[in-house]
Amino acid sequence: MSLLTIGTVAFDSIETPYGKAEMVIGGACTYISWAASYFTKDIHLVSIVGEDFPKSELDALESRGVNLEGLEIVKGGKSFFWAGKYHLNMNGRDTLVTDLNVLSDFNPILPEVAKSSKYVMLGNLTPNIQAQVLDQLDGSQKMIALDTMNFWMDIAMDDLKNVIKRVNLLTINDDEARQLSGEHSLVKAAKIIHELGPEYLVIKKGEHGALLFHGEEMFYAPAMPLAQVFDPTGAGDTFAGGFMGYLASTNDISMDNMKRAIIAGSSMASFCVEDFSLNKLKLLSLSEINSRMKGFKDLIHFDLL
Amino acid sequence: MSLLTIGTVAFDSIETPYGKAEMVIGGACTYISWAASYFTKDIHLVSIVGEDFPKSELDALESRGVNLEGLEIVKGGKSFFWAGKYHLNMNGRDTLVTDLNVLSDFNPILPEVAKSSKYVMLGNLTPNIQAQVLDQLDGSQKMIALDTMNFWMDIAMDDLKNVIKRVNLLTINDDEARQLSGEHSLVKAAKIIHELGPEYLVIKKGEHGALLFHGEEMFYAPAMPLAQVFDPTGAGDTFAGGFMGYLASTNDISMDNMKRAIIAGSSMASFCVEDFSLNKLKLLSLSEINSRMKGFKDLIHFDLL
Repeated sequence: MSLLTIGTVAFDSIETPYGKAEMVIGGACTYISWAASYFTKDIHLVSIVGEDFPKSELDALESRGVNLEGLEIVKGGKSFFWAGKYHLNMNGRDTLVTDLNVLSDFNPILPEVAKSSKYVMLGNLTPNIQAQVLDQLDGSQKMIALDTMNFWMDIAMDDLKNVIKRVNLLTINDDEARQLSGEHSLVKAAKIIHELGPEYLVIKKGEHGALLFHGEEMFYAPAMPLAQVFDPTGAGDTFAGGFMGYLASTNDISMDNMKRAIIAGSSMASFCVEDFSLNKLKLLSLSEINSRMKGFKDLIHFDLL
Repeated sequence: MSLLTIGTVAFDSIETPYGKAEMVIGGACTYISWAASYFTKDIHLVSIVGEDFPKSELDALESRGVNLEGLEIVKGGKSFFWAGKYHLNMNGRDTLVTDLNVLSDFNPILPEVAKSSKYVMLGNLTPNIQAQVLDQLDGSQKMIALDTMNFWMDIAMDDLKNVIKRVNLLTINDDEARQLSGEHSLVKAAKIIHELGPEYLVIKKGEHGALLFHGEEMFYAPAMPLAQVFDPTGAGDTFAGGFMGYLASTNDISMDNMKRAIIAGSSMASFCVEDFSLNKLKLLSLSEINSRMKGFKDLIHFDLL
């Protein structure tokens, strides 16, 4: 089944305790699409870049089965740019630069063929832009997932709640789940967030894994402990891309399959952080991915007597 | 097999966002012993209290199979007292009062019968006191576990390393593992800590679960997401007590059984935090514990295709 991905395609400059990467490829939609491309070859990307974005990068996405009809390239424009520096413990980061550039005029127009995508991943963007995408869908979707962040909760909570109401799945981190619900317990937060609309909630906890909530059901996926985390940038988007790519390819939204999809997303995220930018994500093989997914199974396996 | 537990038996005053508990029963050794008593009835407790410690509490421990021959009761003395206040998010706490009282003269003397205990849990104490206990053991132990904290790393790192060298298993939290090893990656930290002596390492991550490291093997146990965490005090000690109680009762230190023991410890800790002090820990049934352990299995279960 086809997957529609919306979000930023951008440049990043990143500094971590392990090194620097200047003006490398980034953006939520880029990470989502690359991660999903290991599972499905029927992806529609909707985003906006400037003329400065390398054609070779777009060619690489197309060669992965990503349809770029919905990518607007602004003549003479500059692509969205983000610069950040991670703290010594990698658990926090400071944003140094946010240049919206062409993103400030983003007015997503879905190609006709993308409007019936059965799976939709709305990357983190202004809630009203996310809503504008929903307005154009034909209503035949099986799963619409939305990613957002605390920034929108701080400045546009009403808009955000209006768009959250319209999706099936929300993906946020643990602090954001607490902020959105006003509850410290994630179990209670999940109940409140279900009442806002989404029947599925994925709480991302970074190095501590992820939780999937659906009705009374709860699933805890660990994160893979790694010898080296070089760069956490894009890990959440990569998780979402792997998750939605897996769902689109299997076209099965049973809880059992959603759990496998969470493991697929966690596996992709674990690769993402092992190098800067998309460096590692671009070079994976399916056997590496399957082996990492099996590694998750081994990591948590125990038998009760 | 018999389990020897060493540590504090004390009074606590606790304030959390959900309420206050004044001068309630606390202490590492108390939590360890109560948690272990659901798995084994052959426990030797070594600690020190003042005359102010309620006889009814000691009777209750004895009725759980805890031998108190090694508990020194100081005539006219006052028991160790700790007061703390948890932050709004429950992830941090401030110590308000630490009155060592009789603990400052603690000179643990093992009863003859306890020296051959096959399982030993050294609760968090001055490293030199922990070493003094090791000096009295007869050398026939199958598993000696040691709990400690950042405080001793700050002021007595050499003493701590000397005692860590002599135990089979170390249990600390993730920040402490990073401090002890100087490595941010827990995978790398585990390798360095193995080189310090212990062939097993348990890293406690509170609401994010626990990791067990042994050689190249790694096991990730989640924490149970709970609707209400009333009081995290004693959760780490309860975890250790459940873990060591399970090992002592099964007398099997294969990796497969160690994993079950981690789940037993995690289950006991999940009950501990659901009420103040030992309130919930004192009232459990084996069927509740088995059902919680099964709950952990369900929480993480997934099948790969």
